[in-house]
Amino acid sequence: MTIELSMFKNIGIIAKQGDPRVIGCLQALVAYLHQRQLDIMVDATGAKLLSDQNVKIATNTEVLGGCDLVIVVGGDGTLLHAARLLAKYDVSLLGINLGKLGFLTDICPTEMEPHLNAILNGIFLEEERFLIHAEVYREDECLSYASALNDMVIHRWSISHLLTFKTTINGHFVNWQRSDGIVIATPTGSTAYALSAGGPIIHPSMNALVLVPICPHTLSSRPLVVDGDSCIEITIDTGQTGQAQLNGDGILSQHLIPGDRVVIEKRQYIRLIHPQGHDHYATLRAKLDWGKAL
Amino acid sequence: MTIELSMFKNIGIIAKQGDPRVIGCLQALVAYLHQRQLDIMVDATGAKLLSDQNVKIATNTEVLGGCDLVIVVGGDGTLLHAARLLAKYDVSLLGINLGKLGFLTDICPTEMEPHLNAILNGIFLEEERFLIHAEVYREDECLSYASALNDMVIHRWSISHLLTFKTTINGHFVNWQRSDGIVIATPTGSTAYALSAGGPIIHPSMNALVLVPICPHTLSSRPLVVDGDSCIEITIDTGQTGQAQLNGDGILSQHLIPGDRVVIEKRQYIRLIHPQGHDHYATLRAKLDWGKAL
Amino acid sequence: MTIELSMFKNIGIIAKQGDPRVIGCLQALVAYLHQRQLDIMVDATGAKLLSDQNVKIATNTEVLGGCDLVIVVGGDGTLLHAARLLAKYDVSLLGINLGKLGFLTDICPTEMEPHLNAILNGIFLEEERFLIHAEVYREDECLSYASALNDMVIHRWSISHLLTFKTTINGHFVNWQRSDGIVIATPTGSTAYALSAGGPIIHPSMNALVLVPICPHTLSSRPLVVDGDSCIEITIDTGQTGQAQLNGDGILSQHLIPGDRVVIEKRQYIRLIHPQGHDHYATLRAKLDWGKAL
Amino acid sequence: MTIELSMFKNIGIIAKQGDPRVIGCLQALVAYLHQRQLDIMVDATGAKLLSDQNVKIATNTEVLGGCDLVIVVGGDGTLLHAARLLAKYDVSLLGINLGKLGFLTDICPTEMEPHLNAILNGIFLEEERFLIHAEVYREDECLSYASALNDMVIHRWSISHLLTFKTTINGHFVNWQRSDGIVIATPTGSTAYALSAGGPIIHPSMNALVLVPICPHTLSSRPLVVDGDSCIEITIDTGQTGQAQLNGDGILSQHLIPGDRVVIEKRQYIRLIHPQGHDHYATLRAKLDWGKAL
Repeated sequence: MTIELSMFKNIGIIAKQGDPRVIGCLQALVAYLHQRQLDIMVDATGAKLLSDQNVKIATNTEVLGGCDLVIVVGGDGTLLHAARLLAKYDVSLLGINLGKLGFLTDICPTEMEPHLNAILNGIFLEEERFLIHAEVYREDECLSYASALNDMVIHRWSISHLLTFKTTINGHFVNWQRSDGIVIATPTGSTAYALSAGGPIIHPSMNALVLVPICPHTLSSRPLVVDGDSCIEITIDTGQTGQAQLNGDGILSQHLIPGDRVVIEKRQYIRLIHPQGHDHYATLRAKLDWGKAL
Repeated sequence: MTIELSMFKNIGIIAKQGDPRVIGCLQALVAYLHQRQLDIMVDATGAKLLSDQNVKIATNTEVLGGCDLVIVVGGDGTLLHAARLLAKYDVSLLGINLGKLGFLTDICPTEMEPHLNAILNGIFLEEERFLIHAEVYREDECLSYASALNDMVIHRWSISHLLTFKTTINGHFVNWQRSDGIVIATPTGSTAYALSAGGPIIHPSMNALVLVPICPHTLSSRPLVVDGDSCIEITIDTGQTGQAQLNGDGILSQHLIPGDRVVIEKRQYIRLIHPQGHDHYATLRAKLDWGKAL
Repeated sequence: MTIELSMFKNIGIIAKQGDPRVIGCLQALVAYLHQRQLDIMVDATGAKLLSDQNVKIATNTEVLGGCDLVIVVGGDGTLLHAARLLAKYDVSLLGINLGKLGFLTDICPTEMEPHLNAILNGIFLEEERFLIHAEVYREDECLSYASALNDMVIHRWSISHLLTFKTTINGHFVNWQRSDGIVIATPTGSTAYALSAGGPIIHPSMNALVLVPICPHTLSSRPLVVDGDSCIEITIDTGQTGQAQLNGDGILSQHLIPGDRVVIEKRQYIRLIHPQGHDHYATLRAKLDWGKAL
Repeated sequence: MTIELSMFKNIGIIAKQGDPRVIGCLQALVAYLHQRQLDIMVDATGAKLLSDQNVKIATNTEVLGGCDLVIVVGGDGTLLHAARLLAKYDVSLLGINLGKLGFLTDICPTEMEPHLNAILNGIFLEEERFLIHAEVYREDECLSYASALNDMVIHRWSISHLLTFKTTINGHFVNWQRSDGIVIATPTGSTAYALSAGGPIIHPSMNALVLVPICPHTLSSRPLVVDGDSCIEITIDTGQTGQAQLNGDGILSQHLIPGDRVVIEKRQYIRLIHPQGHDHYATLRAKLDWGKAL
């Protein structure tokens, strides 16, 4: 039997936490990669699930960052986590889902082997997806920062009042807004929370950001699509009562108080690997039930 | 000079808290009512602002509830507060705003005297507005309850996950929903937060409730208008992580945990007094800028 | 074998036109009703499809109107047609679909026999659904009128300009609007075109109408729910260029010119028969894919 | 008196048709340009209004296309017309409105002279706005074509049925859709009809197109933002009954029948001149009443 030479030599694996369905997929994946005689490096979550198998454990992020390809086993949330973790390294990401098609994890476990065969043999699609970075300033001091592949969300936290905030883009005043908050989403994130809040779908190849107001008081407030290289600044009104939160990809990054400024910009990329023939519109049709009624 | 006999003998006054603009309007109101030789009973907030004038202080809600007419000086929020306070008494409410037209407080300070003249002489419109009542059950024990003239809102509180909950109406299962939450609004509340969340405008004369999903994950989730006498029950998914809140008219009523049930029903009415010629559509046109573009 | 006495003695049948899938269902239906020894009266469309069978042909609407029960074989469109035809008679309607669940035609062909058994034996749900009636006035002369179970739609016909029109409700001016047009829908119609135009879902038991602007120029124009007994009047702006149409249930009723007035009011009812256990929310869940994502 | 040398030597003028308010503005404009001793060339509409003044008449489009600057006096519609007319020439456009701020005609008559002073002295902002071009194919023959600065709209024409059509982007199948039609808008057009149909606002500097479904039957159909260099193809379903229209900037371009294909692509640019300090967000705030409620 001839083993094809893979263009990816060192394979990292990141597994979804706390989901027992991962184990079977992970075992099959590791067995397959062993058979291909590739170096495998598994994150702590995955290693725990594979305790009895002969795998190396990635003791820190840097080790995974040194891999040629990192395979994510889980849902879109796990791939978002991997992307934030590895964005600063030169690594490609591939997502295997747990049976339910994801926007980012588009390989089903049942089709894993033929797809991996092709991909490891160099037949695949590769696309760049950019992340956004947020910095929170309080009186000119940077309090904290965060990265996100999908979105940064500024949301009121205590319910009793709408949030009042100012938006500027590249230093140009856009508006004062009273709402539940605002989503600043990448094209990748345009099919996530931004869509629920009323935003458009943005093709992932675009260099664009979308600002989507959440339940705005002014009914003419609408989603706004701007250049991906824009610098977006949200300032919480100093007269604001109640509190706000900044969340990156749905994870709490910072509690915000009146006067806080959040500065959001594109920073870093990941490379996403898809099987040959991958089609974003097919994923949209499947996930959004388009055409079902016809 | 002949003083007309007022059909309202005992006048209560409720003033907005913490807004210095109230004072001038309050003084003019009290001076006018004194001149009409009517009994005046002012709530604690108003009494403090009128310290030097000869007014009786309403030491408890019951005293205000015993008035024929309670005049609210402030914004819609103050009238909501007054309505919840007085719904169990047989009292009429009249709203005087602080310069900005409200949906409920529709008399401007500058037009106060002629309008009051007419109203006290028996020339006015009267309409009933119903309140809704919510009870929170945890394992069949009623934890707390609340009333609202506008809306009950169940909203996720921690940001990281959507809220998962079940809705039933009169015992009929409607759906499981993942969203930021849900608004259950009266017709009165249909022009408040429910409108920002995408709900329709419901004429205040209708016996209806509207359920408006907030940023629902399923894009075909839509506002649902049901009979005002419906019993609506929202149950937080037992698998839910993160927390939720129940708010009545924007005021925190109860923190909710997985398994909690919120039962919402119509209960109690207030009578709202308007000047003759009051027109709900005129208020909508003014507040929503309808027709501005033509 | 004992034949149960049916509470419906004379059964009318209305069949969808131009759909070959009707034949099989129609033949099975007629065979079943013959077996139950009931009088059957088939409309012209159905009779043509059943040429070889022993059925009486309903030569005019009055004959169908004299039946106790009219069974509609087709989709919701066929039932809308039957409802408009028979609203002035005292007749009950039952809808059998052609394999795809409808909001109105909720019996699947495969479940036809057991459902008919129960219904003919008197076990069923019955609900009233009201129709709306539109009259078009040109200089105080009534040009034409139409009925609809779902909706009246006033829509621009030539594309180049938005339509400008005035809305009044019970003589009260609502607004001037520039838009593609307006839908005035019954609760029955709230899940049809009105839903696509952004309207809410209204429970069919409600006595309500909803006015839904179609692509309005003013972004704060929103669906408006009013009492079912309201008289709604739409007047085309005399300065309007281009043309408009009035459509009842999607069927052209009248071309409209500047100055034309359309007066819309509730008129007439039909009785809709459902199998025991019918649940409007179950139909909503099935048709709108609610809960699919969970 | 020193006359500054203008960087624009030959000035064309295009006037709105059929609006008497144009005359005053036009006369003031011509007087001003005469005083600046510039060559003026007026289109037929403008020339008729200025019959008594000493102006040259542009007898054909080519003459206007040869100007350095064409000043449009009217509303956004007049500027759209001028843009389509002159896109193939190397000419700059400047818009003077008739008192109502436009997105494209952003100079008010009252501020005309100081703004023109600065602009003619070389102090101004210039931006490119791209047009889209549509070709209609029937059985592989190109029937007709059209250009638009705002949008191409495919809209059903007879009302009784939704339109069924297929969308592809760069040859990739997107979906089959049933709806009232679809808007394909440039960033310039994103604040026009596309906005009424539910589309996002796209910054005019972006190289993007947005596809906005009009009242789609499938509620998960949503606006889709794609690269400005995409080739969009809409094919009318061969089973479609009823008719459709293609409109460019709201002007009828072609009646469409089942099987027709409309191919839409970016083509040609215009240069839009704005006064120094022009701010797109200020225009949005003014036109959409943002911030009014605060």
